[in-house]
Amino acid sequence: MENSPYEERRQRVAAALPERKLDCLLVAFSPNLRYLTGFTGSNGALLILAGRSILFTDPRYRTQAAQESTCKIRIAKGALVLDLVAILGKLGVKRIGYEPARMTCDTFESIKSRLPLRASLEPVNGWIEELRMVKSAAELALIRRSVETNSRAFEQTVARVKPGMRERDLASELEYRMRRLGAEKPSFETIVASGVRSALPHAQPTAARFTPGDLVVVDMGAFQEGYASDMTRMLSVGAPSAKAKRLYRAVLEAQLAAIDAVRPGVSTVSVDRAARRVLAGYGLERCFIHSTGHGLGLEIHEPPRLGKRDRRRLSPGMAITIEPGAYIEGFAGVRIEDTVVVTDRGCEILTPTPKDLLVV
Amino acid sequence: MENSPYEERRQRVAAALPERKLDCLLVAFSPNLRYLTGFTGSNGALLILAGRSILFTDPRYRTQAAQESTCKIRIAKGALVLDLVAILGKLGVKRIGYEPARMTCDTFESIKSRLPLRASLEPVNGWIEELRMVKSAAELALIRRSVETNSRAFEQTVARVKPGMRERDLASELEYRMRRLGAEKPSFETIVASGVRSALPHAQPTAARFTPGDLVVVDMGAFQEGYASDMTRMLSVGAPSAKAKRLYRAVLEAQLAAIDAVRPGVSTVSVDRAARRVLAGYGLERCFIHSTGHGLGLEIHEPPRLGKRDRRRLSPGMAITIEPGAYIEGFAGVRIEDTVVVTDRGCEILTPTPKDLLVV
Repeated sequence: MENSPYEERRQRVAAALPERKLDCLLVAFSPNLRYLTGFTGSNGALLILAGRSILFTDPRYRTQAAQESTCKIRIAKGALVLDLVAILGKLGVKRIGYEPARMTCDTFESIKSRLPLRASLEPVNGWIEELRMVKSAAELALIRRSVETNSRAFEQTVARVKPGMRERDLASELEYRMRRLGAEKPSFETIVASGVRSALPHAQPTAARFTPGDLVVVDMGAFQEGYASDMTRMLSVGAPSAKAKRLYRAVLEAQLAAIDAVRPGVSTVSVDRAARRVLAGYGLERCFIHSTGHGLGLEIHEPPRLGKRDRRRLSPGMAITIEPGAYIEGFAGVRIEDTVVVTDRGCEILTPTPKDLLVV
Repeated sequence: MENSPYEERRQRVAAALPERKLDCLLVAFSPNLRYLTGFTGSNGALLILAGRSILFTDPRYRTQAAQESTCKIRIAKGALVLDLVAILGKLGVKRIGYEPARMTCDTFESIKSRLPLRASLEPVNGWIEELRMVKSAAELALIRRSVETNSRAFEQTVARVKPGMRERDLASELEYRMRRLGAEKPSFETIVASGVRSALPHAQPTAARFTPGDLVVVDMGAFQEGYASDMTRMLSVGAPSAKAKRLYRAVLEAQLAAIDAVRPGVSTVSVDRAARRVLAGYGLERCFIHSTGHGLGLEIHEPPRLGKRDRRRLSPGMAITIEPGAYIEGFAGVRIEDTVVVTDRGCEILTPTPKDLLVV
């Protein structure tokens, strides 16, 4: 009988415990938990030991946990932490790895204060996130599906956009469409920002109506079977001005340059620099106020980041966004974003949606 | 000129710093941050000192933060923590309150390791959550609006439910409707669970189709202007069986008994007991596997909790859910839930939707 991918991942972690001088690893961060068990409930913790794993959850998830995971499951009557500590005590483990970037100070203290004297909590940062960074073929297939759903939702919806439509109505149409096409939910709050509001990189949709002359940022993504997609496209309400066209061309050129820079072995910062260099050529370097992209998978933002200070080598199987932008306060902002996968020789752009400035 | 509610809240916190022997309070948990500043961005931290407050965020939110908050704003170029620590050093504060239930171990270490030797981090748990528990009239008006949007979305949608519809299509219709009616988004992932899946209290909607004889749990809520609503109603696909009707009656009776128990001064556990007692009368005490309710506001789940181990006195202005359920594995589950507000004499049920078992 074949092992599930979850079992294989747990075995891989368990096998590496000795070299990290750990007796076990405690994982409670929900995307990491899902990656290692398949469990999708909102309350759970996983203990990985050599040769076995225990998934802790509460009575609400008794049936679901048994359906989703092949782990041994323990149903806690009260706080999971108390059940967990009782088991840690019984097992006699000494060095317990935990996720300090994911655990609150309260939970840490709560476990630490109840541990046997000889046991200790050892910080282990980013281990599971590191494993998650390079996707399996099965994961890439899910990301591809999520990207396609997202693009189809965009295409079905923008065909009906007209001047006078409200930002938030377009956002709700887009989200409705992606769900009808099989997504569980948006992978983040859909951004629809028109006119001067397009210069706010993280604007929430308002009741503002599309007015001739507006540029509109549409930044959207889906979660489908747990995996994220992310795309940004620009609309122009009526014919764009010469200034808007120039801004659009600059960002598009930056985005293409960054995509061109993506290949195995290249540092994330050099992809970011490729975009920044183009924008600087247009005098827009100070208008690009975020990083060029980020990994995505079970989270919408996950390592690697592609920013000014990020020096991680790209590897085949990484799924990342490429999304430079330029924001001119009081005028407009432009961002163009695709989801791409690093391949053996360069990258594949998963996003099928054309990148023309779409006039509506 | 009148102060904004945010300024008043910050002043109230600042005024209580001395009695807690603190020089300042650091708040980074997003609902608390919004409560104290109005800022809705995803990355921020607030430092409250006697006489002034500083809001830290990053360049993406420069414009938005200035629009949303009257705080002094600092835009950090890198990690907020570094900027924050630099300011803490300059201000010469000694005792810095922080939120240990909200701060990760990593952030704590990162701040602690950079503080001047004479400064210390002091855990302050649940202070802002305590303030948030009792809602102002303006907040109650927003919750009421959110509840009404949510109920209207339910009513507009269920009118068109037919046998053969898929769980996830009903969920997406409900979410689309609430958005069209003015909600920003669902306050949690809408639950639509039919047949034996209704016995999973936190089921995610699937492609399963409604089949005659199914009971269907619909648990849904909206966020509107930041405030949550929460409601559960039951559908029966075709005429319900005698067993389904009995189960429904038991839970409805439990829910009415719990609502009846809500008044100022009463302990949360006694509201929970009121529901449990009724279900025990039907032999269903072991089928009620969660608590009777929870507070809601800027979060969908916030204090107070109304469970077996919760002994908080109810006060006028608290907004809570009352949602007992009974789950029989392999048969069906029933849950009925309203959002209510504690008044001077008892409670007001905000949810306007009728509580009959709706046959579709």
